Amino acid sequence: MTEHTASFDGVLDAASCLAGVAVRTPLIESPALNERLGGRVLLKAETLQVAGAFKFRGAYNRISRLTDEERSRGVVAYSSGNHAQAVAAAARMMGTSAIIVMPADSPKVKVEGVIAFGGEVRFYDRYTESREAIGEEIASTRGSVLVRPFDDPFIIEGQGTTGLEIVEQSQALGANLDQLLCGASGGGLIAGINLSMAARSPSTRVIGVEPQAYNDTQISLAAGERLTHPPVETPSICDALMTDRPGELTFPINRRLEKVVTVTDAEVAEAVRYAFRTLKLVVEPGGAVSLAALLAGKVETGGLTTAVVLSGGNVDPGLFAEIIEGRFAR
Amino acid sequence: MTEHTASFDGVLDAASCLAGVAVRTPLIESPALNERLGGRVLLKAETLQVAGAFKFRGAYNRISRLTDEERSRGVVAYSSGNHAQAVAAAARMMGTSAIIVMPADSPKVKVEGVIAFGGEVRFYDRYTESREAIGEEIASTRGSVLVRPFDDPFIIEGQGTTGLEIVEQSQALGANLDQLLCGASGGGLIAGINLSMAARSPSTRVIGVEPQAYNDTQISLAAGERLTHPPVETPSICDALMTDRPGELTFPINRRLEKVVTVTDAEVAEAVRYAFRTLKLVVEPGGAVSLAALLAGKVETGGLTTAVVLSGGNVDPGLFAEIIEGRFAR
Repeated sequence: MTEHTASFDGVLDAASCLAGVAVRTPLIESPALNERLGGRVLLKAETLQVAGAFKFRGAYNRISRLTDEERSRGVVAYSSGNHAQAVAAAARMMGTSAIIVMPADSPKVKVEGVIAFGGEVRFYDRYTESREAIGEEIASTRGSVLVRPFDDPFIIEGQGTTGLEIVEQSQALGANLDQLLCGASGGGLIAGINLSMAARSPSTRVIGVEPQAYNDTQISLAAGERLTHPPVETPSICDALMTDRPGELTFPINRRLEKVVTVTDAEVAEAVRYAFRTLKLVVEPGGAVSLAALLAGKVETGGLTTAVVLSGGNVDPGLFAEIIEGRFAR
Repeated sequence: MTEHTASFDGVLDAASCLAGVAVRTPLIESPALNERLGGRVLLKAETLQVAGAFKFRGAYNRISRLTDEERSRGVVAYSSGNHAQAVAAAARMMGTSAIIVMPADSPKVKVEGVIAFGGEVRFYDRYTESREAIGEEIASTRGSVLVRPFDDPFIIEGQGTTGLEIVEQSQALGANLDQLLCGASGGGLIAGINLSMAARSPSTRVIGVEPQAYNDTQISLAAGERLTHPPVETPSICDALMTDRPGELTFPINRRLEKVVTVTDAEVAEAVRYAFRTLKLVVEPGGAVSLAALLAGKVETGGLTTAVVLSGGNVDPGLFAEIIEGRFAR
């Protein structure tokens, strides 16, 4: 691995690397949502990114830094699904192969996405096997580079371009961002965004959002050190946000977070339904936690300008149908 | 009524009137769709417009031209749903009341939308009653102004702002539009777009799209006069596009169309599913006909730059669930 440390200069480099390759996703404003919340809300639709989630930014930025020789040996990644698809898509664009280690209970749409992008899938059991160990083993056996989901400076910097665009796009709208909400799992996206906001919009409060039972970033910030959340009996509807504890590289950056709030699965389902019905956007549960926090009143919005990252839209049709028809209950 | 004639100057006036009120909806590009079609496709997401469809542009532009006295008597409109919601929303913004004449079989989501915007609903039977007659009667009894769905120059000019934005946004992307696809029902949107394209991008071919059995614009263009399509036994999945014949004011403008192609309900359902799965956008059947025409190969796209209007996103959750789960069959 490189000695490179994640920085805002690296975010700017990543932006050059991604220009014309990643989608510059729109910052969407909904008069209905503004009215409901009594403030101004700007939605960064990373659902419209290549492979349906912000993850492509980091994956492409990382893989583009490989040497020709590294690229010839292919890459390997472990992921609950969005990073998986992103690595497969980026690998294909750069003419290398990808093996993806995915939980056996990954959403079907994410597994199909990996295969459609030409990736090879290796399933593992989320509860009995270590994805890190399997990934490392494949990497060492084949000599492939492991593309980590968040603990890699190039990944963090790639995701940080989301924040850079939010600042540029909100300035173009004449908006001054009071706060920005973003989901936290391993913390790569929100760490990258923190780098961008610290450099370009330091007065904007960055707030993390986690599923209630997967609040490892919240308890880690309170404790001042990386902690693992207590064991959880049933998985969250937010399959993309079920990491056990903050990343080694991401956590130090995320210490600058204003706070972390949590949302229940029912609140997330309501946000997914609202996005369908009123915003006309397809947002996956894990991608809707920030919107859920606003709609559930976990964060004040009255009179404020709030940016929200809708981080992904890869959701199985069956679950989406359950949610929008009001049949989802947990 | 006014003696005003629809023109591109009127479109520019409408753009000023709508600034800061209507959403400047994004022109979205999907690398996956470009790859599938072998060309460049730019999607105008009017699904993200106020009240979920382009209709707000025309309705607001029309109602804003009323005198204070006219406004005090309220407005009336007839509509299958999207114009209904748009008139209710625009009326509320301008402090007037709205009575909306809607088919008894309108999608529930559209009826609820009208009520949520404070409109009053009067149902009629699509097969035995005349909505025009009911609308005219309410207008004459109450002295209300009838806000027509398409045969009104201010409506046509308001819808035309969609085309103006498409030209401006595609130029900002450095794209030169070879062709533009848009659904045709009464023809207000595509007429307004024709005004804008004739003035600002005359070499762009504008192509209309209709549901197969509701091809009145297609047969009218072929005949050189306004014709009514043959009777249809079952309604189309495209509830928004079931007008019998082209408008009196819209048809002369739409004579400049390159051609009109048609799509089946199955092709439309596939486009709605594709929009969910790959584009992460909620598009109603009537709003997806242009995308359906591309995906079904009804129009050549290889090596071309094509703009597509996704005209609305108001679809009942039950039908949407059927379509995305592959249970829809007709």
